Amino acid sequence: MAITVGVIGTGAIGADHARRITQTLTGAEVIALTDVNLEQAETVKNTLKLNATVYADGHELIANSGVDAVLVTSWGATHEEYVLAAIKAGKYVFCEKPLATTAQGCQNIVDAEMAAGKRLVQVGFMRPYDSGYKMLKQAIDSGEIGTPLMIHAAHRNQSVGKNYNTPMAIHDTLIHELDVFRWLLDDEYVSTQVVFPRKTTFAHDQLADPQIVLLETKKGVRIDVEVFVNCQYGYDIQCAVVGEQGIANLPEPQAITMRKNAQLGNALLTDWKDRFIDSYDVELQDFFDGISANKLTGPSSWNGLAAAIASDACVTAQQSGQIEKINLPERPELYR
Amino acid sequence: MAITVGVIGTGAIGADHARRITQTLTGAEVIALTDVNLEQAETVKNTLKLNATVYADGHELIANSGVDAVLVTSWGATHEEYVLAAIKAGKYVFCEKPLATTAQGCQNIVDAEMAAGKRLVQVGFMRPYDSGYKMLKQAIDSGEIGTPLMIHAAHRNQSVGKNYNTPMAIHDTLIHELDVFRWLLDDEYVSTQVVFPRKTTFAHDQLADPQIVLLETKKGVRIDVEVFVNCQYGYDIQCAVVGEQGIANLPEPQAITMRKNAQLGNALLTDWKDRFIDSYDVELQDFFDGISANKLTGPSSWNGLAAAIASDACVTAQQSGQIEKINLPERPELYR
Amino acid sequence: MAITVGVIGTGAIGADHARRITQTLTGAEVIALTDVNLEQAETVKNTLKLNATVYADGHELIANSGVDAVLVTSWGATHEEYVLAAIKAGKYVFCEKPLATTAQGCQNIVDAEMAAGKRLVQVGFMRPYDSGYKMLKQAIDSGEIGTPLMIHAAHRNQSVGKNYNTPMAIHDTLIHELDVFRWLLDDEYVSTQVVFPRKTTFAHDQLADPQIVLLETKKGVRIDVEVFVNCQYGYDIQCAVVGEQGIANLPEPQAITMRKNAQLGNALLTDWKDRFIDSYDVELQDFFDGISANKLTGPSSWNGLAAAIASDACVTAQQSGQIEKINLPERPELYR
Amino acid sequence: MAITVGVIGTGAIGADHARRITQTLTGAEVIALTDVNLEQAETVKNTLKLNATVYADGHELIANSGVDAVLVTSWGATHEEYVLAAIKAGKYVFCEKPLATTAQGCQNIVDAEMAAGKRLVQVGFMRPYDSGYKMLKQAIDSGEIGTPLMIHAAHRNQSVGKNYNTPMAIHDTLIHELDVFRWLLDDEYVSTQVVFPRKTTFAHDQLADPQIVLLETKKGVRIDVEVFVNCQYGYDIQCAVVGEQGIANLPEPQAITMRKNAQLGNALLTDWKDRFIDSYDVELQDFFDGISANKLTGPSSWNGLAAAIASDACVTAQQSGQIEKINLPERPELYR
Repeated sequence: MAITVGVIGTGAIGADHARRITQTLTGAEVIALTDVNLEQAETVKNTLKLNATVYADGHELIANSGVDAVLVTSWGATHEEYVLAAIKAGKYVFCEKPLATTAQGCQNIVDAEMAAGKRLVQVGFMRPYDSGYKMLKQAIDSGEIGTPLMIHAAHRNQSVGKNYNTPMAIHDTLIHELDVFRWLLDDEYVSTQVVFPRKTTFAHDQLADPQIVLLETKKGVRIDVEVFVNCQYGYDIQCAVVGEQGIANLPEPQAITMRKNAQLGNALLTDWKDRFIDSYDVELQDFFDGISANKLTGPSSWNGLAAAIASDACVTAQQSGQIEKINLPERPELYR
Repeated sequence: MAITVGVIGTGAIGADHARRITQTLTGAEVIALTDVNLEQAETVKNTLKLNATVYADGHELIANSGVDAVLVTSWGATHEEYVLAAIKAGKYVFCEKPLATTAQGCQNIVDAEMAAGKRLVQVGFMRPYDSGYKMLKQAIDSGEIGTPLMIHAAHRNQSVGKNYNTPMAIHDTLIHELDVFRWLLDDEYVSTQVVFPRKTTFAHDQLADPQIVLLETKKGVRIDVEVFVNCQYGYDIQCAVVGEQGIANLPEPQAITMRKNAQLGNALLTDWKDRFIDSYDVELQDFFDGISANKLTGPSSWNGLAAAIASDACVTAQQSGQIEKINLPERPELYR
Repeated sequence: MAITVGVIGTGAIGADHARRITQTLTGAEVIALTDVNLEQAETVKNTLKLNATVYADGHELIANSGVDAVLVTSWGATHEEYVLAAIKAGKYVFCEKPLATTAQGCQNIVDAEMAAGKRLVQVGFMRPYDSGYKMLKQAIDSGEIGTPLMIHAAHRNQSVGKNYNTPMAIHDTLIHELDVFRWLLDDEYVSTQVVFPRKTTFAHDQLADPQIVLLETKKGVRIDVEVFVNCQYGYDIQCAVVGEQGIANLPEPQAITMRKNAQLGNALLTDWKDRFIDSYDVELQDFFDGISANKLTGPSSWNGLAAAIASDACVTAQQSGQIEKINLPERPELYR
Repeated sequence: MAITVGVIGTGAIGADHARRITQTLTGAEVIALTDVNLEQAETVKNTLKLNATVYADGHELIANSGVDAVLVTSWGATHEEYVLAAIKAGKYVFCEKPLATTAQGCQNIVDAEMAAGKRLVQVGFMRPYDSGYKMLKQAIDSGEIGTPLMIHAAHRNQSVGKNYNTPMAIHDTLIHELDVFRWLLDDEYVSTQVVFPRKTTFAHDQLADPQIVLLETKKGVRIDVEVFVNCQYGYDIQCAVVGEQGIANLPEPQAITMRKNAQLGNALLTDWKDRFIDSYDVELQDFFDGISANKLTGPSSWNGLAAAIASDACVTAQQSGQIEKINLPERPELYR
């Protein structure tokens, strides 16, 4: 029997997940939809030829007894209330980033889930589902490079719009690294510092670009991440893990090596959507497989909380110019 | 409504396709199985918890009106008769390599399919579904390297067993290149020649290894393929297309670049199964999508015939040491 | 007429430079030698079949009117006095690293040279003569990557001996980066900070290894250098310059790409001597060419001073854990 | 005492060798010059400020008792007579390619040298002096890839002029490969075949371009060389040696890897002069070092003969379309 799914928020990402569930993944079926713009929900229903009901709002959708699992892909500010409602209803819920717009909101979700006594929430951090990061994780865990001591990383976008400001380099961009390093290293952050190199002339007034974020973990691993969102040349994610006995690099995306016009090389991606496109399928299939097995194993609400706390500390560090502590509460048993 | 599938031959590849249909792909369901060893068919049924009937033989399975599509994954020598039976029954049929053990057998299938007046057969050539070859095809078709003039290719296995002999280097190994080059170039072969380099001491008596196969196409493209099945170092597929204005290379499989033990590099695959594992999913999904659209577009029985004719000429060239003609009949309208 | 050269200090590096002058370079001839161990000087004279006089000490050698130019390759603590003596004698002098063991010593040399009114000193910083760094410098200067904003670098040794301690990671290892970045960027340092990642178990008690040194320049370029002298895997120098419009990487040393044993890759160097071996020839030839042209253009005593001041600040930063200022005096006209 | 050198032919290459001897190499001095255009010889003498005599012709130059060694860099058709004259005079002679314009001419030189009883001639094949080929040779000789079985190679020029015709692809272009493979493999050719791929539209009427030359050696090694002299994209020399246990590739020329304009890659060379520029220094220094040691070890007149015979067979194969024998006489003791 297919898992019945309700989608709250049928904008770009919600519509795409609905398509994914309907056309690509196995074991799940979209039977309920809603959106602040109900017409948009109807359009998705019709385009995908879904046998689904459009509900007036997310709470009605969650309340429907025929819905097994909920996808929260609405506007970020509404995530917390829908996730809490789904937990209260005892339903599995997949929530896109951010889990909540504040660390306290994430904590509320963690608390609710702990009260429920089982993992019901998966957060939409997709990098652990990327084939390259999985190979990197495997290389680390195999012991081939020895104990990790450092990570050198970069997150580069070709350019960003006028309304992208300095803190967004953390909340919207670094957030992915903040999640994936914890997973790669099985470790927690203890401090952060942000330094600002000479600013690129391609960044507008409200944005300090590039930035270098320095992180320290409990085990003493030092991480430097260059965040450069107007790098001009492409969308580029770099991650090198330096261990006691060797270095492992995140693979470059698959590409055709070409000899042409006095150049030997390959095209780089320019659109972030192309970089992790395959991982979206894998993360959502994993969510449904977890439901079938009655045991979610993907990114948890705890991960959402940890990323939010680290994120806040990094923004503080942007402003203070100081080394800032990152204080994560003890990890509860449920999330080990 | 899911496409109902019957699987003839539940050995390694048949069982794997049954698993694929059941657990990974969408839109199809295995409802019938058979094998020369019926116990084996029962085992697959039970392992995959299929709601399926085990039939006494392939003909009974094909005859069952509930079966929409047939998978022929039995012993090679039986492919022709089952494919012909499926065509006769007006059913879609996916046949693993070889389509038939002789060019005449392939011709019989083409004739039957043409008599049926529509494409019913897809042959299990998976390379056109490989993400790397798709990128290479796109690079060629984009015109970025100009008109193709040459291909330099290699097909290397770490080692082969004692019963692998010289002609098998063509029938079992080169066959994949023979199919994929036609697709890459949208061209047909006109001649072949085989030269034998110094033999590796790692090959047994019955096998001339390595071999270099030289092919010429209608458009004048010259192809050299090194077939080296005891190369010791790994499973390695190379393909460089030299055009008038540049060269495009088949991407290497994704891998972690590592610095370790005074070496900078990455692991190579050693097992051929790992190289094209993802393509099996894609080819079979494409078969079912083609059925849903009532229009197969994957490798056709004509491709099976073309590969068989080229294959036979290469074996003749192995023996003669001469340049041998490859005579493919005019391509019928149905296969354009 | 060949430039006549006196070599003060005929240990490993001095003997090697004498061989270089005699057998490889053009336009110079070793006619005088000395060493604390006079027998060693005699051995070099005999091995190289030099038509040369062995002097009792460096000062006698410098005083000899037949000597046009002096090479100071003696024990580091003696460099300052011999360089000062050579300047006083109005002779060109090539001094191996360090120019002096203290910043004050370097300042004394700069002062003496300025009093002499012309450049007489070249310091043995060889990286600007490395073909790879020259290509990198050219890539930066061409404007291809736009204005430099950041450098990510690494200096890794396979292992170091028991008497190598934490400050030596700066004075003996980072010193090369401290010189070469100034040259690459045509810029000066203003601050430094050192962070200590988790320590490798391959380092002994007296050594914090690895270290990450963060540098800031006048133009605002931010530099991070990983210094890891027990990295186990090889001798590896990395340098990536991130500009406003692209990134340029120091080339890897030339190597054979090999496919073998299920690996695709190339050997890395393990001995630092092999990495810059060619540059020693080029730097010394440039010294003699500069003498012939009566105009030295290689690394100056000012460069020696700048590296020494930066070096001292980095050691202070190692100890303080704070961001430390790097105060370089205004660059005198002579060194522009 | 420096070796005194006379240069016959002071065109581009002769003038460059004179500069090389005067400014870069050690142990030799140009004291005599001649050219069909005596003014040109005077110009070189003046430009390089040589203390040299300009002779009326090559024979006068050779006859001068003060000349220790002769460089033959005149028009190809005159090489044979000057080399023979130098041998007769008992003088060492470095002769640019071709040693003679016919195989018989080369044989005459070999015969004269054998009559002289010692090696006096070095031919200007510079590839064995290229650092990349030296690494490749070392990789082969080390046994790391096992016994060589095949070579896949390419010689590509961006474009050629109107007077470059089909046979020149052998005589002027492939000639370098014909020499270097013999040296790499320590082996001799026994047959050749030439196949013509679809012709590039960038080649003019008199030129079949590209060509693929297939060579077979005594030890059974099979070599395929793509010669493509209007490849448009750059000057590119490829050489992969496939052994029983692995594959070694000629290194790419050192280059800056850059990320820019949505591309990751490096510039390729476009001018052949840049590719082997360093080897010219090394080959000529080796000639003088050989003279000093009274034992030449570089490319011999036998190599010149072997390349000429192979070259002629390849041109025959171009015309016949057949497999052509390459008949090299037994190698005399002098050249082992």
